[in-house]
Amino acid sequence: MNLPTVCVDGVVQRWEDLRLQDFAQGFFFGAGFFTTFRIDAGRPLFLARHLARLRASLAAFPTAVRAPEPALLHEDAVRDSLRRGLEADPLMGARFTGVGKLAVSDGHVLCTFRPLAPDLEALHREGRTLDSVEAGAYRRAERTVNHKGLAWFRQHALLPRLPVITNEADEVCELPTANLFVQFDGALVTPPLAAPCLPGIARAVLLEVGPLEGLPVVERALPLADLSRVQACFFSNAVALAVGVPHLLGRALPDSLRLAERARAVLEARALHEG
Amino acid sequence: MNLPTVCVDGVVQRWEDLRLQDFAQGFFFGAGFFTTFRIDAGRPLFLARHLARLRASLAAFPTAVRAPEPALLHEDAVRDSLRRGLEADPLMGARFTGVGKLAVSDGHVLCTFRPLAPDLEALHREGRTLDSVEAGAYRRAERTVNHKGLAWFRQHALLPRLPVITNEADEVCELPTANLFVQFDGALVTPPLAAPCLPGIARAVLLEVGPLEGLPVVERALPLADLSRVQACFFSNAVALAVGVPHLLGRALPDSLRLAERARAVLEARALHEG
Repeated sequence: MNLPTVCVDGVVQRWEDLRLQDFAQGFFFGAGFFTTFRIDAGRPLFLARHLARLRASLAAFPTAVRAPEPALLHEDAVRDSLRRGLEADPLMGARFTGVGKLAVSDGHVLCTFRPLAPDLEALHREGRTLDSVEAGAYRRAERTVNHKGLAWFRQHALLPRLPVITNEADEVCELPTANLFVQFDGALVTPPLAAPCLPGIARAVLLEVGPLEGLPVVERALPLADLSRVQACFFSNAVALAVGVPHLLGRALPDSLRLAERARAVLEARALHEG
Repeated sequence: MNLPTVCVDGVVQRWEDLRLQDFAQGFFFGAGFFTTFRIDAGRPLFLARHLARLRASLAAFPTAVRAPEPALLHEDAVRDSLRRGLEADPLMGARFTGVGKLAVSDGHVLCTFRPLAPDLEALHREGRTLDSVEAGAYRRAERTVNHKGLAWFRQHALLPRLPVITNEADEVCELPTANLFVQFDGALVTPPLAAPCLPGIARAVLLEVGPLEGLPVVERALPLADLSRVQACFFSNAVALAVGVPHLLGRALPDSLRLAERARAVLEARALHEG
């Protein structure tokens, strides 16, 4: 899945040359964190935010994960390392568009690259139906869910079905790999971090930028039962940015695609602005 | 931490030669399972049980984890592969006493070895105080807790403190790396798998073998509050077998050491019997 060129601690290497030994705590215990981001024509989107989240996760678990030298997670160092990785690989090049991943474990920073999923345009055009719920899979304020850890198996195992994950109070948390936004009661509502859910980069940007099509964007506890009354729905992540949900748990929500398109436009504009 | 010789899919290799690429799903997503067991003078204890648990975990998540060829997890094949690994390493040899670990991910079976912790004898002699609780960290019937997954970060992060983990109903579940047994109301009580807790190998053997010092061994929901009334306590895992808890959440339980010693004797005898 990964392209053949990677960077480890800023040094360009070949994926096939990396040793398991150097990432043993990440492998055996999931003791590490990662983040996945979009690269547009060589430019990583929201890189500073992704790095800030990685640093926050390392700070939250100072003994359980061996952090890399702080300089290795500075924005300029990572940007430079990504650039050299792209330029070193004839399959990518300086103007590569695709997906980057930063994984941090065992004192190392690993950057890998892969192409965009071929169906991303269709996903943007047609949206994605959500038709199942994983009830009570999270508990409120569960701490590890707020960090994108290498121990990501609970979410990984749910990915093919993409259920709406709820907590023990039947409140909506997130999707396995995305935050959820719904148009409801005159606002664009997304669950609070304590639901719990991942502090997604696109989610944070949408909350900061503010009203979308006149709808204030707010964090608010979202009972699963309320999904039967929402007017539109999309989900967000750092790669697809925003994807409309034209069918949510059996209800048709035709306005979802347009709302997701507006959210994508906001995210793309903001990414340009942040450089 | 690992000794230099390992086996992958039955082939003896050097730990430093393994490639991250071959274990990528285990590393990035915690998509795999592991088990850790004692090796006494070259003999892996309860190997058939450890393999049965690995196979059950693979069967429980058939799409999320790429299983190895079934033959690679047959008892004879693994026993043979362990033997060849021990004989190949001058630091171990055919009569090695220590710890083995089997990790399964990405279609591979990885066996690694390490020495016994130098303080294991002291741990058996003196026991281990338990003085903290991780309240509500698990929820009842949480499925992934019943499988020893490579996404083991929640437990890994709690290891240094070794708290008693409870669920949302304030019932005892387990310790981060051990099952808990308490003498209470004329029985030796351990929480049920649905608490949830790991189906530990030593735990299963103690339940099967039956009365310990005249106490029937039973699975029963164990409210945290009841710990203030127990008469003795030990914890079990496949490496230390059983460790007494002479101090539990501030209470002295002097009988714990003797009870743990009895449990160890039962486990050692049973391991001999199972060959």
